[in-house]
Amino acid sequence: MHDHDLETTIEFRPRFGADGLIPAIVTDAASGEVVMFAWMNEEALRLTLSTRVAHYWSRSRQALWKKGETSGNTQSIVELRIDCDQDALWLRVETAGDGVNCHTGARSCFYRLVTDADGETRLAFIPDEGGPEPV
Amino acid sequence: MHDHDLETTIEFRPRFGADGLIPAIVTDAASGEVVMFAWMNEEALRLTLSTRVAHYWSRSRQALWKKGETSGNTQSIVELRIDCDQDALWLRVETAGDGVNCHTGARSCFYRLVTDADGETRLAFIPDEGGPEPV
Repeated sequence: MHDHDLETTIEFRPRFGADGLIPAIVTDAASGEVVMFAWMNEEALRLTLSTRVAHYWSRSRQALWKKGETSGNTQSIVELRIDCDQDALWLRVETAGDGVNCHTGARSCFYRLVTDADGETRLAFIPDEGGPEPV
Repeated sequence: MHDHDLETTIEFRPRFGADGLIPAIVTDAASGEVVMFAWMNEEALRLTLSTRVAHYWSRSRQALWKKGETSGNTQSIVELRIDCDQDALWLRVETAGDGVNCHTGARSCFYRLVTDADGETRLAFIPDEGGPEPV
């Protein structure tokens, strides 16, 4: 299938990388905030579609991972989109429980800004994100 | 550096993959919509930080890529965030010109929904995204 076909088709042809994974961007369906970035293999995607609850592939643990299975913070799929060349997914989710999406306890994994101060690039914790204690 | 340190530090330690790339999620700073998913190598990130305009690494062309250089749709960085383990970036941008971010002419590369109809997974074009003509 040519690139142009991938862009214009209504056939679902997710393209997994050489490692068998496709990136998944996860946003909170209500606030729009990006809460997580994760990976799916074919099985995780199949389970996500059939259960409407987010499943991922953990690269560090090399295991299928039902998000929230232990914490209770499962992510229900409100909407799923795919990009032009079908190699990235965007999940809009509703997170159960206290709305924590990051294993650090933060609402979003993106709880730090990249800042420039005096020509040096550093990070700054964003108040109210519920991130870990800065060191 | 241990994982816990990566999560709590204010040191900027972006972790590039084995291919030298880090994923970049791009959202429209005003609407919050995810408009693009791209990759950066070290140079693209450095240029993005120093110019405050998004630069990426094109995997298909194997080349540094200043987004909008030919189309005029450059992306000014409003905010840049990094995730807990510093292996994913989130750019909130303001797109110049007509606000098109996708090479297909769409506002966002994510102009199609993944839907289930009669147990079959298909795609559906989202009206008003300005995506290509469906085939």
